[in-house]
Amino acid sequence: MKLFRYGEEGAEKPAILDADGIGRDLSAHMDDLGPDELSPYALKTIADLDLAALPKVPEGVRIAPCIGNVRRIFCIGVNYSDHAAEVGIEPPENPIVFMKACEPTGANDAVMLPKGSSHTDWEVELGVVINQTVRHISEEDALDAVAGYCVVNDISERDFQNNHGGQWIKGKSCDGFGPIGPWLVTRDEIADPQKLDLWLDVNGEAKQRGTTARMIFTVPQIIAHLSRFITLHAGDIITTGTPPGVGMGMTPPQFLKAGDEVRLGVEGLGEQCQKVVAYSK
Amino acid sequence: MKLFRYGEEGAEKPAILDADGIGRDLSAHMDDLGPDELSPYALKTIADLDLAALPKVPEGVRIAPCIGNVRRIFCIGVNYSDHAAEVGIEPPENPIVFMKACEPTGANDAVMLPKGSSHTDWEVELGVVINQTVRHISEEDALDAVAGYCVVNDISERDFQNNHGGQWIKGKSCDGFGPIGPWLVTRDEIADPQKLDLWLDVNGEAKQRGTTARMIFTVPQIIAHLSRFITLHAGDIITTGTPPGVGMGMTPPQFLKAGDEVRLGVEGLGEQCQKVVAYSK
Repeated sequence: MKLFRYGEEGAEKPAILDADGIGRDLSAHMDDLGPDELSPYALKTIADLDLAALPKVPEGVRIAPCIGNVRRIFCIGVNYSDHAAEVGIEPPENPIVFMKACEPTGANDAVMLPKGSSHTDWEVELGVVINQTVRHISEEDALDAVAGYCVVNDISERDFQNNHGGQWIKGKSCDGFGPIGPWLVTRDEIADPQKLDLWLDVNGEAKQRGTTARMIFTVPQIIAHLSRFITLHAGDIITTGTPPGVGMGMTPPQFLKAGDEVRLGVEGLGEQCQKVVAYSK
Repeated sequence: MKLFRYGEEGAEKPAILDADGIGRDLSAHMDDLGPDELSPYALKTIADLDLAALPKVPEGVRIAPCIGNVRRIFCIGVNYSDHAAEVGIEPPENPIVFMKACEPTGANDAVMLPKGSSHTDWEVELGVVINQTVRHISEEDALDAVAGYCVVNDISERDFQNNHGGQWIKGKSCDGFGPIGPWLVTRDEIADPQKLDLWLDVNGEAKQRGTTARMIFTVPQIIAHLSRFITLHAGDIITTGTPPGVGMGMTPPQFLKAGDEVRLGVEGLGEQCQKVVAYSK
């Protein structure tokens, strides 16, 4: 299933794409698409609905973050062997984990450059949405804890990230730095999360081209590792690292400026398109 | 005011200490003590109540985390000049920010050693509770964004923190690693947050003795700095670093074991007392 949320901030409604790609409103069956609706049981309930009987989602509405009440966003750093080479970092021996502290935004919401930013960069990533509380899960069982997958743009301010005191969180958590969606694609639709192409263009120019086959730590390995240290809960998102082609890795480095358009996608998970706008507030 | 929450997990009630130090139940006036109850207006409403007319909190109840629905816990690393010397780290030029991903626990809840842990350490800290949404706040105005203060034990597994891949979050986020409280002491009761003594004992033996006067970055400096990168919201807690005397810094290093009792406090903010228990689950 391809589940999503639509509508303005604070008034989002749950929805699903039907077999013809038409959005169908799920409000009659659930208040929101959040942690409580991610369990296998809840997803089965949605799968059993007669979608043709549901109201169509209006045209032209805002696509909201694909999950409401996202609990936490964990990020894996330097997780593609070809990206590690690009930024000149040795492939890590264990997953590098950090957090993104901002609220998620919709797939096509504008991205505002932070105040004083001159190094805002892009990162297309495979996002993994957790469906239950897990501790010390094995690699073999780890995918049982996955409700589904989504596209994430792990937007990053490289100066904030690297030049203002250790730990990466400062460059990862500005307002609007976490577009997720458009859809939560349920796990059953993705036969192998390690065989997905990822891509990102800026102003129509190819920047990132990659495949999850080049992940240093696979999705099950990441979940198993993380759950040794941190109890995972339904509604957590793990974003699993970015392939090569980030602006920081280019010669000379390239960063986003107002007016740029970023398009990105992951195979089977849909596309995002963000307009970059100047800081104002 | 000294505000607190009591009762078992999932059934916590808001309360306040009266002038005689007797707990008074606030349930008739608010559902919980969470982000919505931290604004200056909401706190003024509480201050105007006739506490003698409120029911007494029963004896012997569990003291719950002093805030419900804590939004995020930001931590400042290596923020005391005497602690930096102890662990052999150069004083940072900017605040080191990381997150604690676990749910907060009550001041006197047992601390369970994580599975496979042999390096669980203590850190008494001054916690700062944010009362509103703030971005780019100045140092001069920063304390306006503070609802109050609380004791935090930033419990840390040093092996998880330092030996399993970069970034500190893995050693900071195990279940039970964030006792907060007993009380949220409102800002008006703390004349100067940079003149508070902090202390921590293990099994009655003095381990940490410090003063917030030795902070490298003051509370206003931390809030101003953080709000440049991350929009702060009501219900966020910033825990501001630990004074000397952590187990990791001792010769030889000392860590917690099942049966230990940790007592800690910050001047004017009350005391915590945690029993350390073995892993089980």
